[in-house]
Amino acid sequence: MVNTGSRASYGDEAPVAAFATTPGSSALTIIRCSGKGSIELAASVFSSAGIKDAPGNTVVHGWIVQGDEKIDEVLVSVFRAPKSYTGEDSLDISCHGGNSAGKAVMTVLKHAGFREALPGEFTFRAFMNGKIDLTKSESVMEIVCAKTEVSRRHAVSRLCGSLKKEIDEIKNLLVQVLAGAEIYLDYSEDEVSADDADEIAGRLPGKNIALQALSRLKKLSNSWQVERIYQEGITLVIAGPPNAGKSSLFNLLLKEDRSIVTEIPGTTRDWIEAFASIEGIPIRIIDTAGLREAGDSVEKIGIERSKKILQEADIILYLINEDLNDLRLNDNSKKIPYLYIWNKCDITPVPASFPVHDIKPISVSAKTGEGLSELNSAITSAILRQTTLVNEPNAQDASVGTERQKKLVDAACCALEEALAMRENNSPLDLIAPLIRDAVNSLGEITGEVSTADILEEMFSKFCVGK
Amino acid sequence: MVNTGSRASYGDEAPVAAFATTPGSSALTIIRCSGKGSIELAASVFSSAGIKDAPGNTVVHGWIVQGDEKIDEVLVSVFRAPKSYTGEDSLDISCHGGNSAGKAVMTVLKHAGFREALPGEFTFRAFMNGKIDLTKSESVMEIVCAKTEVSRRHAVSRLCGSLKKEIDEIKNLLVQVLAGAEIYLDYSEDEVSADDADEIAGRLPGKNIALQALSRLKKLSNSWQVERIYQEGITLVIAGPPNAGKSSLFNLLLKEDRSIVTEIPGTTRDWIEAFASIEGIPIRIIDTAGLREAGDSVEKIGIERSKKILQEADIILYLINEDLNDLRLNDNSKKIPYLYIWNKCDITPVPASFPVHDIKPISVSAKTGEGLSELNSAITSAILRQTTLVNEPNAQDASVGTERQKKLVDAACCALEEALAMRENNSPLDLIAPLIRDAVNSLGEITGEVSTADILEEMFSKFCVGK
Repeated sequence: MVNTGSRASYGDEAPVAAFATTPGSSALTIIRCSGKGSIELAASVFSSAGIKDAPGNTVVHGWIVQGDEKIDEVLVSVFRAPKSYTGEDSLDISCHGGNSAGKAVMTVLKHAGFREALPGEFTFRAFMNGKIDLTKSESVMEIVCAKTEVSRRHAVSRLCGSLKKEIDEIKNLLVQVLAGAEIYLDYSEDEVSADDADEIAGRLPGKNIALQALSRLKKLSNSWQVERIYQEGITLVIAGPPNAGKSSLFNLLLKEDRSIVTEIPGTTRDWIEAFASIEGIPIRIIDTAGLREAGDSVEKIGIERSKKILQEADIILYLINEDLNDLRLNDNSKKIPYLYIWNKCDITPVPASFPVHDIKPISVSAKTGEGLSELNSAITSAILRQTTLVNEPNAQDASVGTERQKKLVDAACCALEEALAMRENNSPLDLIAPLIRDAVNSLGEITGEVSTADILEEMFSKFCVGK
Repeated sequence: MVNTGSRASYGDEAPVAAFATTPGSSALTIIRCSGKGSIELAASVFSSAGIKDAPGNTVVHGWIVQGDEKIDEVLVSVFRAPKSYTGEDSLDISCHGGNSAGKAVMTVLKHAGFREALPGEFTFRAFMNGKIDLTKSESVMEIVCAKTEVSRRHAVSRLCGSLKKEIDEIKNLLVQVLAGAEIYLDYSEDEVSADDADEIAGRLPGKNIALQALSRLKKLSNSWQVERIYQEGITLVIAGPPNAGKSSLFNLLLKEDRSIVTEIPGTTRDWIEAFASIEGIPIRIIDTAGLREAGDSVEKIGIERSKKILQEADIILYLINEDLNDLRLNDNSKKIPYLYIWNKCDITPVPASFPVHDIKPISVSAKTGEGLSELNSAITSAILRQTTLVNEPNAQDASVGTERQKKLVDAACCALEEALAMRENNSPLDLIAPLIRDAVNSLGEITGEVSTADILEEMFSKFCVGK
């Protein structure tokens, strides 16, 4: 058990309560309660004895009361340790929605002795009680924060244990290597000749196993590049000469997934931006058409005024016409991928003069929607091509879901690579073995087998309240 | 059973599903399902057979699946007809929070055959299945919309049946009166002489009972004046000469209930407004201190520029100093209540020269908070004094909670008053009795005993989805 100090902290088993839903004009507000004695405590402010004797996984109907006053009519789901999310006695109280009912119930609960739960405290307790490992804990928040179907799906895969399984398998490989090393180290010096000892020391047993582990670690580490794109999304800027159809293209891209578009209201900026999902990648789309287009000098618009916006781009869609002077914008030191777009293909097809300067524009019609799916694929490919991955990762492949996991995978990689390098230099085994132990520990930290109070607190405090 | 037509409507028993919580970065998202076959339908997209055979009021843990793909790990509360909110087979599906998980689950449910629930459809079904009457149905939405503790408490009282009980009791009184009348009407003409008939006709039996019913109806009707204040709130404007301490008073009033203050961000208006609760009344407080104060001419500020704002006020707090020229602002044709405030009483007490022109200012100190509770009481009293109620209503008294209920109470009042007037004019009983029947019907409409499809649809369509 981690003990993080005497203040209200993640280390205790006190009955805690928290809103598990967003306040608003909704049908229901859910308050989650958990901790030692939480069922008895809730029963003390409940209209009947129903909760106290309720078996686990049952729902009791009644009123939250304060003395004689009925506060709200609720449904209470009762969970008995260890069969609950946290592994403790727990309750989900389903109150009326809106801003008042849940607040009034929470006041009664706090008065009865519940303390407000810290961010992520329910999941922390689930982890402490061995209900889930750290990769699953983190995937819970990844699901909550998922912006698109793809990021949700990846997080669900980790919740199902895909990452934990991969980490455990790699760790087992390293443990095999270590076990071999320990056997060699067990030879006491007087049992082997100096020559023998030299020979043994230089030989890290299970080299092939170690190399296999290293390769799988590198693959995991690389997976973060793609994972981060799906989690955090990228910025796409639409640029090009005046009247090339930038706004039409902007609207076309948004049309694909109207459900998650949130145009920023009352913005004072002189460009328009909105969020959409393209093949599962959350994309902030910026339309530079809002910039006042003074005259028809492309440099003036594109270079002077768009400079700042283009700096923010991860990818640029550049609408071209036959005047290839426009292409001068293609000076970019940041190596931002450019996709050249030939818009209005419903009126004029791409001229036969292309490709020019190796530029083969993508042909679309913002009006008819022609070429949209090709454009979407081109965008996705261009983004993923920026990563060091050769192929798009297989959906079944394990991937890391947080920066924390990525750093620990990298730490394990480093230690293992150093161990392998020392082996090549015939360093003594008793210097190599600790490096492999470090790698194993790093992997243990990912799943939470090895962890410190500080790290856990840091991690769970980033969760939302009620989770 | 009401039949409202052939399109997706409130009249059927189809399995429906709706989000019952507000989307956002929260721990949980709840999807409510109800209708004939809803449990079997949900079981078809659930990871185990657990739901199908689950007894009512139990919680089953598992996954929502689509084919082989796990969509989200959920808790499903199963309710069996008639022991559910709607009276039908129902389920509450507790998904992960955020924007993606619930949406993905909803997609699966719709694919399985659930239709999206109409606004208020769950409560509509609860009403149709005799689980609750209309006053309780409406109180459910009143609770969701309640802005303060007091409005929540009033709504809860109606959910507990206080209004239904009062309506039923009044209706019983009228039915007694009617029963008496029917007996008189039962005398056939040949049994009574013409003189007797005249005498009987003019006599509405149970006059005292009718008067008692009328008095209770009027009290109910009046209760709406107060109820509406607690539900919708009022606008309070702080005015007065420059540097009188308007902003300090504004902050002091807000400090009382920081929890529901929502200052309007990025406002372009030249005054500041915020929402607070004063003794349970939701109050929009406008501080005119933001108006650029040109010179020290009170007229210029107060009359020219504040005119529009003062027009919106339901009550005005006017800060005064010893220069009573300021009081010229007190020309108000709208009869808005003015409270005169002597601020900074911590420095200078109210001068002995007061009361002047019958004005006895309320002494407060925005700095020390002195006098605040007296000020709050004075505000509340001044607002409630605007209603025709003599005394503040007793918390135990029944009150109407919606405009609809108020109108029906008034209709019953009118019919009953007309009946009593006709009695005074010795009108024949067979003209009087139908009026009393009208009154009874109006009361029946309040609780929903008498209702038409149109009225019900109109009422429930104003509910939020998921309720």
